[in-house]
Amino acid sequence: MTTALTPTAPWRATILTLYPEMFPGPLGLSLSGDALARGAWDCEARNIRDHGLGRHRSVDDTPAGGGAGMVLRCDVLAAAIDSAAAPDDPRPRLLMSPRGRPLTQARVRALAGGPGLVVVCGRFEGVDERVIAGRGLEEVSIGDYVLSGGEIAAMVLVDACVRLLPGVMGKEASGVEESFEGGRLEYPHFTRPRDWEGHSIPEVLTGGNHAAIARWRAAESLRLTRARRPDLLGPDLLAPDARKDP
Amino acid sequence: MTTALTPTAPWRATILTLYPEMFPGPLGLSLSGDALARGAWDCEARNIRDHGLGRHRSVDDTPAGGGAGMVLRCDVLAAAIDSAAAPDDPRPRLLMSPRGRPLTQARVRALAGGPGLVVVCGRFEGVDERVIAGRGLEEVSIGDYVLSGGEIAAMVLVDACVRLLPGVMGKEASGVEESFEGGRLEYPHFTRPRDWEGHSIPEVLTGGNHAAIARWRAAESLRLTRARRPDLLGPDLLAPDARKDP
Repeated sequence: MTTALTPTAPWRATILTLYPEMFPGPLGLSLSGDALARGAWDCEARNIRDHGLGRHRSVDDTPAGGGAGMVLRCDVLAAAIDSAAAPDDPRPRLLMSPRGRPLTQARVRALAGGPGLVVVCGRFEGVDERVIAGRGLEEVSIGDYVLSGGEIAAMVLVDACVRLLPGVMGKEASGVEESFEGGRLEYPHFTRPRDWEGHSIPEVLTGGNHAAIARWRAAESLRLTRARRPDLLGPDLLAPDARKDP
Repeated sequence: MTTALTPTAPWRATILTLYPEMFPGPLGLSLSGDALARGAWDCEARNIRDHGLGRHRSVDDTPAGGGAGMVLRCDVLAAAIDSAAAPDDPRPRLLMSPRGRPLTQARVRALAGGPGLVVVCGRFEGVDERVIAGRGLEEVSIGDYVLSGGEIAAMVLVDACVRLLPGVMGKEASGVEESFEGGRLEYPHFTRPRDWEGHSIPEVLTGGNHAAIARWRAAESLRLTRARRPDLLGPDLLAPDARKDP
């Protein structure tokens, strides 16, 4: 929170897009939708086309140097950003882009702890490079794949942030004991029925020994991370026998 | 394509979710929406709760061994999967999960080349581990962060696939010259106006020398990848002077 906001000001997401009708969309249902309905956060979608040029409200043009596709104009996008966020707006300005810095849970937590977001959704081939520096946009990537536009990526980012806002999740614990928070993948879950198609819940989980359960979960978490995502582990945890009781 | 499908069968996404009303949502607009409207792909959302237990159609229960949150029952989810996809359904069955294998553009391209997807969207703390092996689910992660559920992650996956289906993008070229396809981030884009707030389009792009433009773009692509995502490059390309003319 910054001093510009009162403690009760909701976390505010402003989305700049050519498809404002996509929002809140899935963010208007379930956990984020409930939080939206009770004012824990605010979702504003603004149409970049409102700042388009001429009778057809044109927003894009052919790429300089040639090539396929169209590029969002810097002047149009800058006007849309300027209209949505005053220069002293303390919110970070992000551009969803596969060229950006990969989103992490640590970054999500930092963004959720701030006043909100201004998110620009690209379309077509991309946006004119000059507006990125000119309006202080930080390029953020949700993963190493290409989408048809930034809108669903923005939904990913906003959903990840909103669930961490105070009071949004039923139990605080749900936000902590999960994948990535400790640099590990989450351990396997089981619930009733105890026996299903010949497979039982691991005995340790139904034995009532809480210390043994915690050890089993930590060991499973480390085992899964080693097998699937060794890149998340430090070198001292990579070897299977590096630590016995993490 | 498999022999079970005629060449004209559309790519088909079946989504198992507790929030079927989220679909097609943003996938019903823009590029994927146009493709959906003309039958290039098919989107079917099925409610897991239709297979819930008892008068309240219960789908989840408390985690064995204790802890916060609720876990999706294996018997309920298995019934939902069995009802949505026959044993001989050739489509891969994916579970959106932060514990899964990270999604890549290469995997997207492979999935887009197949008959479609059956996607399970988790909610709550997770799903009972036994159903993952029991129904051959492949866990897929869209990135190292946690969402409130798998629905928006499924939209990411489907959007990424649909744009690669034949005829969906205006020009074939748009699918090739972009981030990740060559293991590099995409070069910067520019368009009119030539001068904006004191910044001009790089001269090489307006000079009409196509070979020089191609060289500039390749060099920029490599420079950006080195600066932002050295993890995408092989060791021979990491040093700034490893290759002069990539």
